[in-house]
Amino acid sequence: MDEKWMKLAIEMAKSTLGQTSPNPAVGAVVVKDGRAVGMGAHLKSGEGHAEVNALKQAGDEAEGATIYVTLEPCSHYGKTPPCADLIIEKGLKRVVIASVDSNPLVSGNGIRKLEDAGIEVTTAVLKEEALQLNEFFFHHMKSKKPFVTLKAAMTLDGKIATESGDSKWITSTEAREDVHFDRHLHDAILVGSNTVKADDPALTTRLPNGGISPVRIILDTQLSIDSSAKVLTDGAAPTWVICGKGASQERESQFTQADHVRVLRMEKESIEIPELLSVLGDEKILSVYVEGGSKVHGAFLDQKLFDRLILYMAPKIIGNASAKSVFNGTGVEVMNEAPGLIFEEVKLLGRDLKLLARLEERG
Amino acid sequence: MDEKWMKLAIEMAKSTLGQTSPNPAVGAVVVKDGRAVGMGAHLKSGEGHAEVNALKQAGDEAEGATIYVTLEPCSHYGKTPPCADLIIEKGLKRVVIASVDSNPLVSGNGIRKLEDAGIEVTTAVLKEEALQLNEFFFHHMKSKKPFVTLKAAMTLDGKIATESGDSKWITSTEAREDVHFDRHLHDAILVGSNTVKADDPALTTRLPNGGISPVRIILDTQLSIDSSAKVLTDGAAPTWVICGKGASQERESQFTQADHVRVLRMEKESIEIPELLSVLGDEKILSVYVEGGSKVHGAFLDQKLFDRLILYMAPKIIGNASAKSVFNGTGVEVMNEAPGLIFEEVKLLGRDLKLLARLEERG
Amino acid sequence: MDEKWMKLAIEMAKSTLGQTSPNPAVGAVVVKDGRAVGMGAHLKSGEGHAEVNALKQAGDEAEGATIYVTLEPCSHYGKTPPCADLIIEKGLKRVVIASVDSNPLVSGNGIRKLEDAGIEVTTAVLKEEALQLNEFFFHHMKSKKPFVTLKAAMTLDGKIATESGDSKWITSTEAREDVHFDRHLHDAILVGSNTVKADDPALTTRLPNGGISPVRIILDTQLSIDSSAKVLTDGAAPTWVICGKGASQERESQFTQADHVRVLRMEKESIEIPELLSVLGDEKILSVYVEGGSKVHGAFLDQKLFDRLILYMAPKIIGNASAKSVFNGTGVEVMNEAPGLIFEEVKLLGRDLKLLARLEERG
Amino acid sequence: MDEKWMKLAIEMAKSTLGQTSPNPAVGAVVVKDGRAVGMGAHLKSGEGHAEVNALKQAGDEAEGATIYVTLEPCSHYGKTPPCADLIIEKGLKRVVIASVDSNPLVSGNGIRKLEDAGIEVTTAVLKEEALQLNEFFFHHMKSKKPFVTLKAAMTLDGKIATESGDSKWITSTEAREDVHFDRHLHDAILVGSNTVKADDPALTTRLPNGGISPVRIILDTQLSIDSSAKVLTDGAAPTWVICGKGASQERESQFTQADHVRVLRMEKESIEIPELLSVLGDEKILSVYVEGGSKVHGAFLDQKLFDRLILYMAPKIIGNASAKSVFNGTGVEVMNEAPGLIFEEVKLLGRDLKLLARLEERG
Ligand SMILES: [Zn+2]
Ligand SMILES: [Zn+2]
Ligand SMILES: [Zn+2]
Ligand SMILES: [Zn+2]
Repeated sequence: MDEKWMKLAIEMAKSTLGQTSPNPAVGAVVVKDGRAVGMGAHLKSGEGHAEVNALKQAGDEAEGATIYVTLEPCSHYGKTPPCADLIIEKGLKRVVIASVDSNPLVSGNGIRKLEDAGIEVTTAVLKEEALQLNEFFFHHMKSKKPFVTLKAAMTLDGKIATESGDSKWITSTEAREDVHFDRHLHDAILVGSNTVKADDPALTTRLPNGGISPVRIILDTQLSIDSSAKVLTDGAAPTWVICGKGASQERESQFTQADHVRVLRMEKESIEIPELLSVLGDEKILSVYVEGGSKVHGAFLDQKLFDRLILYMAPKIIGNASAKSVFNGTGVEVMNEAPGLIFEEVKLLGRDLKLLARLEERG
Repeated sequence: MDEKWMKLAIEMAKSTLGQTSPNPAVGAVVVKDGRAVGMGAHLKSGEGHAEVNALKQAGDEAEGATIYVTLEPCSHYGKTPPCADLIIEKGLKRVVIASVDSNPLVSGNGIRKLEDAGIEVTTAVLKEEALQLNEFFFHHMKSKKPFVTLKAAMTLDGKIATESGDSKWITSTEAREDVHFDRHLHDAILVGSNTVKADDPALTTRLPNGGISPVRIILDTQLSIDSSAKVLTDGAAPTWVICGKGASQERESQFTQADHVRVLRMEKESIEIPELLSVLGDEKILSVYVEGGSKVHGAFLDQKLFDRLILYMAPKIIGNASAKSVFNGTGVEVMNEAPGLIFEEVKLLGRDLKLLARLEERG
Repeated sequence: MDEKWMKLAIEMAKSTLGQTSPNPAVGAVVVKDGRAVGMGAHLKSGEGHAEVNALKQAGDEAEGATIYVTLEPCSHYGKTPPCADLIIEKGLKRVVIASVDSNPLVSGNGIRKLEDAGIEVTTAVLKEEALQLNEFFFHHMKSKKPFVTLKAAMTLDGKIATESGDSKWITSTEAREDVHFDRHLHDAILVGSNTVKADDPALTTRLPNGGISPVRIILDTQLSIDSSAKVLTDGAAPTWVICGKGASQERESQFTQADHVRVLRMEKESIEIPELLSVLGDEKILSVYVEGGSKVHGAFLDQKLFDRLILYMAPKIIGNASAKSVFNGTGVEVMNEAPGLIFEEVKLLGRDLKLLARLEERG
Repeated sequence: MDEKWMKLAIEMAKSTLGQTSPNPAVGAVVVKDGRAVGMGAHLKSGEGHAEVNALKQAGDEAEGATIYVTLEPCSHYGKTPPCADLIIEKGLKRVVIASVDSNPLVSGNGIRKLEDAGIEVTTAVLKEEALQLNEFFFHHMKSKKPFVTLKAAMTLDGKIATESGDSKWITSTEAREDVHFDRHLHDAILVGSNTVKADDPALTTRLPNGGISPVRIILDTQLSIDSSAKVLTDGAAPTWVICGKGASQERESQFTQADHVRVLRMEKESIEIPELLSVLGDEKILSVYVEGGSKVHGAFLDQKLFDRLILYMAPKIIGNASAKSVFNGTGVEVMNEAPGLIFEEVKLLGRDLKLLARLEERG
């Protein structure tokens, strides 16, 4: 029966993906004598942890109860007092945990504290599901860098526009809605300055019932985009413009007149992706959704600095080799230097195909 | 129980695909009092029809028996006497048919003849499977042209070679074996002269236990390929070189010194695909497997003169826009003129993905 | 995206099945701009409704938000003020409902109230799942009688004990745990007096992590069971002894000395099942799990007064016709008078088979 | 590609199940250069082996070809010359075998002979499917006794008739057709004398398109059935009446006036199942389908002298313990002496459930 309750806690956590960053998504259920007496999820960074919400609902019934929680309860003083202490104080007799926190400040400490207080602790119930759930969080905790997803929509022949430049619409409504939900799930969306210049996109999350727009990251070495670009003026979500060391201070001042815009200056004249990822990791960006264009994708590919690739492939063919290719980096000289991927998911989405591939090993 | 026996007849026919052209694949089972007394398939053009083989095995037991046959028995005198007559002569009391012959010389005549002789006829048992089985045959019967399959192996970004030209190996052993089996199934394989010049390929079927090599069709307007090319000299399978009206007679003579080589001269200076398909249809080529290169594929695509597309997609990325694209025709000007396809089959083959898409409607 | 949130609300409700009776299981999620701001389920009769719990968590964020709720919000003053009023007061702008309340006091009123207040209402999102979830509740609401499940564990040859009376153990641990979970889900468990006399069972829910024990109903026309029987003395759950009009008053007094025991006297000398079900329905028993013995099962079967049958079938054979049969009522005279059932679920549970069949139409 | 051809050979063999006994079902395909040049199955005991039929069709093309055969080619002189010799004589270069013959006169000899002649032999291709296919044959080869299947149709409560004796119809048309196909597959059907007396059944195979009726075995210790019983007079299939040592000679003479009737006298006054099975095994009965009645089933069950049990279970309930139970032997004293079975197949057949269970280990 442990799995029944943990599954509910995981479902609750899963539904909050995209809204808790930089915290992980966590769910908790308090059960006494076989009945749920409290349920809760962590809803937003800075607000109550899942355990706090579930225990608040449980009230006095928490005494002698079991709490199911998808991640090891915290044991250090952060924005909130440690959940492990709260569990002890409320008199629970058993704690069931899916995944152990990979934060070195936390890992195992919560469990030790609970056990020292005489509470029975069971771990690894539905562990894989719980790890999968917070993949971005665990990746960042371990590497201090964001989890990078390259995303593109293309035709069967790897093209993203006709020779004349027409690209509307490659994919179907279903595929485009899927993309907007992925924007909701990620902390940041990243594009190059050419994309901004060519399309002046909003880069926000537009779903039928709303969604969270990620930080919009624009790679713009010379701060060359038009200061009237939507991302600089609409205030719809934070915009971070990344530039080289020597970019114009005057342009920076122009850009940052809008409250939602920051300019992040790299240490070199050019934007180096490893440095960029370190900076973003330090800024608590746990996940980046790279939408292109083809040169930006090419740069990430050339250095194998990504974790997975999502391709939406429309059942269409441009049929002209000069039409714009989906990726445009330096590329590889010989076939067997090409980065090896593994297909992880293949599914039809409307009339299109969605392919999810993962790098065999990250460089 | 009719389906049980028809399923066996279909399995027998299916196993002969590729070896009966220009005849369809047909299987037959003779059943008496619930027991099989004869089984047979048509094995080769010019040899006995499925009914003949099955009835020979049945001998005297055919009298009063039922015959299950995947295609309407023939009723006209061809290389062999009509099977409908044989069935009547042997005294069968019932004939169960999956698909009706679409040959206007045959369609329905066999059934009428049988019924006139007082034999009970049941049709459309496992009809869809039987039609699918002989798709090439039915297509040719109706259109007088071959069924055209475009086939390519490419990377995730639609490339077939690196910028430096390296293309070995895009796909895995499993995908390459699948291609050789498709060669076995088709009547002809088609490539452009550039492919012959660049790779000097054998274009034969190489499977662990053998297979039938298709006619090798080379599009070579000026008869410009080297006369020492494998396809012109190895005698491993028929080679048909297609050229324009004004191509050199001397080159033709050189090419056709080898018995297995024919030169087919078109009516215009250039090779027009509609004319080519008519000629191949007249030559009893029921199916063509177009292996490229990119310009040849492009020509078929531009005119929508194909029936389906098979793409083997390796989980690799070249990552350079200048690397060779899979298709190179004129292409479309705007996205919504791109030929619309429908994904019909998507499967993993080793580490690669095999995509089979069909043209929504043929132009 | 409506389905995503409703699915979570249903999962939350589902996990509370068995603990909310006579109220239905209900879950609610409050969503604002694509993020969950409150989640809650109804946990126990007399405590807060799902909407109340979810809105409490949402706090000020409820204004302008959408609430997803698995059942139409209540609109009448009961133990708690109406949820419809609370939703209006908190300023939500949209309400999404899975199933409409079948309580004639409520049905449609909640929706009307909300719409009159200018709130957008969407209904029937995941309606079937929500109706299925509260099948006991909807059945009782409509018929005023409990939903009746007959349950038995038997061998392949329909036996529940050997001729010598041995019955331990027919089924495996997995099947027995499944039974205990079904006890948790039902309001009442019902057995005949012979079962109490023979086995002196506890009839409680014994699951690894606890569970709710149902009311124990004993059919005992003459109040003939031993007054030291566990069900009369252990206080582990309420026990209701059903007797005929003329049963001994003295016995009744003896039985009811224990606080957890009630005696329910029928209007006739014998216990008639229709009357019994009416009485139980009036007592807010929404579901009865009939565990036998064979005569009790027989009585329900003879009158077709049940809704479904759950059989655990062990892969064992007693092999003796005189061994005790699973059901023992009057039975039917001829085969085609036998109550017709439909298999609804068949699954392996450990080495046993679990069959769930439903009466084609209830008599 | 070996599997492709062996699968066809297995399909051909499978379709002949029931018609080849006491020989196994065998299929063969001759393949040369990737094309089938001959296909054949063994159709009837005394007629050509599968290899003979396939090689006849192949003619001269057999030279240098590969033959796929589901069972090791025979190497001893029986009704036909050894297939191994024929394969050598015809000049095949490779033999692919699914299962090895378990006949001690044959096992491995065929392979040795072929290898000694320089032919390449590959074994165990689709071995499990091939062994499964001829389960009756391999069982008899090993044990010298028939494979025994107990079959019954019953209600959910294990009854085969109402108390008044009505039993028409327990199961649906689909289930009854399944039974007739199983009769076709078995060498013999077995019932007790009471069944003959009560129902005067035909015990033949009645399928829409015909089928083979098995030998009808009647257990009748005293030769007490009416001499006008259908099985004794209809000549529709062989009937073997089994009786005790001392049964009336006069009755025997009466019974055996009909050509299709034999009387088999046991060595004791009563019919002992072990002796019976030995006799049937010696008579080349490879499989027995025991249809009851309940006492006959009970006798096989009591001694665990069966291999599998097929139960058709109708979604009906008689509901009376005195109604006739499906099995009626001595039975077991305590539950854990009951023969342990394992569910192997459970499926819906029309509205009924078909259960196939196998004895954990045969006694
Ligand atoms: Zn915490
Ligand atoms: Zn013919
Ligand atoms: Zn309410
Ligand atoms: Zn042989």
